[in-house]
Amino acid sequence: MGKKIVIIGGVAAGPKAACRLKRLLPDADVTIIDQDSLISYGGCGIPYYVSGDVADEKELRSTSYHALRDEAFFEKTKGVNALTSTRALSIDRNSRNVKVQDLTTGEQNSIDYDLLMLATGSQPVILSIPGSDADGVFTVSDMHKAIEIKERIAKGQVSKAVVIGGGAIGIEMAEAFTDLWGVETVLIEYMDQLLPRIISWTMATMLEKHLKENKVDVFTGEGAEEILTRDGKVTGVKTGKRSLEADLVIMAAGVRPQSQLAREAGLNVSPYGAIVVNERMQTSDPHIYAGGDCIEISHLVSGRRFNAPFGSMANKQGRVAADNMAGIPSVFKGGVGSFILKAFELSVGSTGLSLETALAEGFDADVSLTSPSDRAHFFPTQEIICLELIFDRRTRRVLGLQGVGPMNDALSARLDAAAVALCSGASIDDFGNIEMAYSPPFSSAIDGINAAAYVADNLCEKRMRQISMEMFYNYMDDPSSQPDWLVLDVRHTKQATPLVEHFGESLWASLPYDEIRQRYEELPTDKMLIIFCNAGSRSFEIQVFLDFVGRKNSLVLPGGFNVIKRMGADWLPEF
Amino acid sequence: MGKKIVIIGGVAAGPKAACRLKRLLPDADVTIIDQDSLISYGGCGIPYYVSGDVADEKELRSTSYHALRDEAFFEKTKGVNALTSTRALSIDRNSRNVKVQDLTTGEQNSIDYDLLMLATGSQPVILSIPGSDADGVFTVSDMHKAIEIKERIAKGQVSKAVVIGGGAIGIEMAEAFTDLWGVETVLIEYMDQLLPRIISWTMATMLEKHLKENKVDVFTGEGAEEILTRDGKVTGVKTGKRSLEADLVIMAAGVRPQSQLAREAGLNVSPYGAIVVNERMQTSDPHIYAGGDCIEISHLVSGRRFNAPFGSMANKQGRVAADNMAGIPSVFKGGVGSFILKAFELSVGSTGLSLETALAEGFDADVSLTSPSDRAHFFPTQEIICLELIFDRRTRRVLGLQGVGPMNDALSARLDAAAVALCSGASIDDFGNIEMAYSPPFSSAIDGINAAAYVADNLCEKRMRQISMEMFYNYMDDPSSQPDWLVLDVRHTKQATPLVEHFGESLWASLPYDEIRQRYEELPTDKMLIIFCNAGSRSFEIQVFLDFVGRKNSLVLPGGFNVIKRMGADWLPEF
Repeated sequence: MGKKIVIIGGVAAGPKAACRLKRLLPDADVTIIDQDSLISYGGCGIPYYVSGDVADEKELRSTSYHALRDEAFFEKTKGVNALTSTRALSIDRNSRNVKVQDLTTGEQNSIDYDLLMLATGSQPVILSIPGSDADGVFTVSDMHKAIEIKERIAKGQVSKAVVIGGGAIGIEMAEAFTDLWGVETVLIEYMDQLLPRIISWTMATMLEKHLKENKVDVFTGEGAEEILTRDGKVTGVKTGKRSLEADLVIMAAGVRPQSQLAREAGLNVSPYGAIVVNERMQTSDPHIYAGGDCIEISHLVSGRRFNAPFGSMANKQGRVAADNMAGIPSVFKGGVGSFILKAFELSVGSTGLSLETALAEGFDADVSLTSPSDRAHFFPTQEIICLELIFDRRTRRVLGLQGVGPMNDALSARLDAAAVALCSGASIDDFGNIEMAYSPPFSSAIDGINAAAYVADNLCEKRMRQISMEMFYNYMDDPSSQPDWLVLDVRHTKQATPLVEHFGESLWASLPYDEIRQRYEELPTDKMLIIFCNAGSRSFEIQVFLDFVGRKNSLVLPGGFNVIKRMGADWLPEF
Repeated sequence: MGKKIVIIGGVAAGPKAACRLKRLLPDADVTIIDQDSLISYGGCGIPYYVSGDVADEKELRSTSYHALRDEAFFEKTKGVNALTSTRALSIDRNSRNVKVQDLTTGEQNSIDYDLLMLATGSQPVILSIPGSDADGVFTVSDMHKAIEIKERIAKGQVSKAVVIGGGAIGIEMAEAFTDLWGVETVLIEYMDQLLPRIISWTMATMLEKHLKENKVDVFTGEGAEEILTRDGKVTGVKTGKRSLEADLVIMAAGVRPQSQLAREAGLNVSPYGAIVVNERMQTSDPHIYAGGDCIEISHLVSGRRFNAPFGSMANKQGRVAADNMAGIPSVFKGGVGSFILKAFELSVGSTGLSLETALAEGFDADVSLTSPSDRAHFFPTQEIICLELIFDRRTRRVLGLQGVGPMNDALSARLDAAAVALCSGASIDDFGNIEMAYSPPFSSAIDGINAAAYVADNLCEKRMRQISMEMFYNYMDDPSSQPDWLVLDVRHTKQATPLVEHFGESLWASLPYDEIRQRYEELPTDKMLIIFCNAGSRSFEIQVFLDFVGRKNSLVLPGGFNVIKRMGADWLPEF
């Protein structure tokens, strides 16, 4: 037998490392330890199992060739020992062994290692509010909970649910409950928007509208203050503003790295609780590696260390850790925090930094908001995709991209290309020339990602002056706050006239794009013109022309009506 | 008035440059000249107009906000003069003017310029065979031809069509004829596969099978030798092997840069006929710029100059040319030849170099063929996508990626991410860590692009030894050519047994993946084992294990049955 390698944690990074190790070092003695009885599952698939899209929980634990990944599978096919229901109690780094306890028998034991890997994952944040331990309150953190949640719904025990937390898991669970089971579902988020810090207010507003249209009640800016119970069972959730009835509560308030073992063993752990590793996935003890949700990695845009709890990252890190344990000097340089989410018929995603995060990191950040077609605008299946490109004005470096699109892979394609570009420090100019494979059924002759960069270029070079969507909404909520503003709708009169009639000519004026060169002198000179079209591109051209004729008092509303239609607004009349 | 700028060519690069110029230099006098009466159209959309997916040809000439891009549009909205039906006859570089002829009146004239741009596009290759000028023979090269093709079909004048040329346009036209009009269509290609030099034989075979399943007859390795006619009208096409009846013939034998004007003006033009420009789109005359199908650009993988006639490239080059004409030092560094095609229910595409091209360029090239799911394998909408990653064994640099997938954006997403990575000289290791935004409805925890790199790594490091799909097909066509080979099917016995029964145990043996560690001694030691599974990953594990136990006579069949099922084969029994 070769090296004795012990891996603590059997969900993603652990099994990946174990299997790769056995391929690199077939004579190694590789053991996975996990306190759970179920291992090697696709945790990200839990919402789709709960919804019924994935019929059986075993599918989340099976290979693509339908083999169940249980202890026997690892032993028979991979040559890996899997000790399930076994808790690692402590690590003795001097004598290189792990003290473990069999959770079935209670028996304690010690396992020697030459090399150790920690893949201890993350743990859900449990809000310390009354009732959080009540029957019917679940986190979405392992297969057992997933199975019980689905069982309760399938048995008809759940007619109302409250989901605490407007992050990805919360939104996915809300969809699962509503869409396929018809459970009356309320989603609450403590911050004042969904997916806070990840996507912008503009994008989050589109998402919120779409959830509401799909019968998920959403309350942002409302934290859960108490889980209401009767006889130890959940009956509802009390927020600062209301009481919500519920038979079932999902607590999806985020996750934290699980690093107690590492900390107790004296390994370097960040203040946030993430195990510190180098690019080879080595902890501060050269005999101990780590990977997956329990570590921190480098953000390749900001340089900051961060925690990226994604199964996709865990697998990459598991492979790199295995390579290094086997003597192959692979590296995992870090990530850019790519994220994507299905929400009913929308895709929502981001990569790199949001504007908010970029500003907090000290960048001279700004954003280009656009609303192009996801493929040739004349191709019948085309749909609008809203994109925000975040960039640094000083260096022209692109810092991030986010978007809301239809439920297909169009947003993915743009995010994935952008993520690669972000890793190499790409500039606005590089983004302008990103080569998206072109054919009308797949993309545009000027793809959205290129157009976003063009707008960013125009903003950087001060060829375009814009008003943010948030400022525009504030204005429309209270037009008297800016009495010298006038919206100049340059769309076709068929589109503009109803709004002119609704708001009145002192607020909303119509002058079609193709008449501006003849009729610009009709425009008032004492007003700040907010130029309005469907996507923003015509508005920009109008601004350039007005500047040229000496009328420099204008701002472009980027993204235009395409964005507003998707965000919705109280001030927007229904037609 | 500011600078006088003349642009010859009004389809893509020309109009893009003109409009950008007017935004950068609103006082410039910008004139587009085109010999055609119809300009600024989406030429790549022609097959979708012919098919009926795009109802009206005007849609290909309209903006996303439904404005028709005719001469009046350019004048009224863009401030650009558009001289249509006007041919540029010659360029006098000394006195900086262009001699033009009004094709309606025959009148000749001269137009001065401060700066000139050539966007003269490409011209279709007309095969010099008898009958190529017959009535009913069309190239797909401008809107007039597109309109006439569609009219003839719509009037019921076309019941049989022959398409000459198995490139993208030929395939798209064949689909248009067959799918929506029910025209009996034959596609012939002179080379021995579809999309020669662009995709591999393996991928082309999948495409060919799919076309045939969709009622397009395909004959490869057959050139058109004569267009058959009666009374000047086409009646068929004669190849080296057969005569095909046809009411209509599409000649889609490729395009060449249109550079006669440039050459006659003494500008630097490549032997292939492409106008030579620098990264700022400047020709050998600093007052003359060029962009679009008529130029050559740098291939960012091979370094070689090449012609990339795509509307998406033309638009980028048009913008860069305009920037530079306006004094902004933008650059267009080149491209990687990204390409994508819809063929009925398949997407087919590539970026970078094919194996064939990479070998011709002197790389120590090899290929990793894989067949992963396009999203989490447990997600209900998942489908198989076949990928080939081309890499250099010596430097571990990735040279290209190509694939065949379902008709969605999954292949695009991988190609687009790969294209960006190729531009920065990414290695196999970089590809292994490409961060694809992960969530089960969009991607896998180990995405196909990462897995392709993992296989490439194993091949580079000689941890995996493979047999090419082409060699395997040759063997299966004539098993007696390799009497000491044995296919080892490691799939479930339910899948393997029918093939064992069909081929006999001396050719096809079954030993399930999960029994190998117990039963490997049953395997013959005097045979070369061709290890066979659905995707290749189990086969690789088996090879590693067999090597470990001292049985080193094996080859993995990469991509496995997933690929073979999509390619089809005469030797494959039907079940």
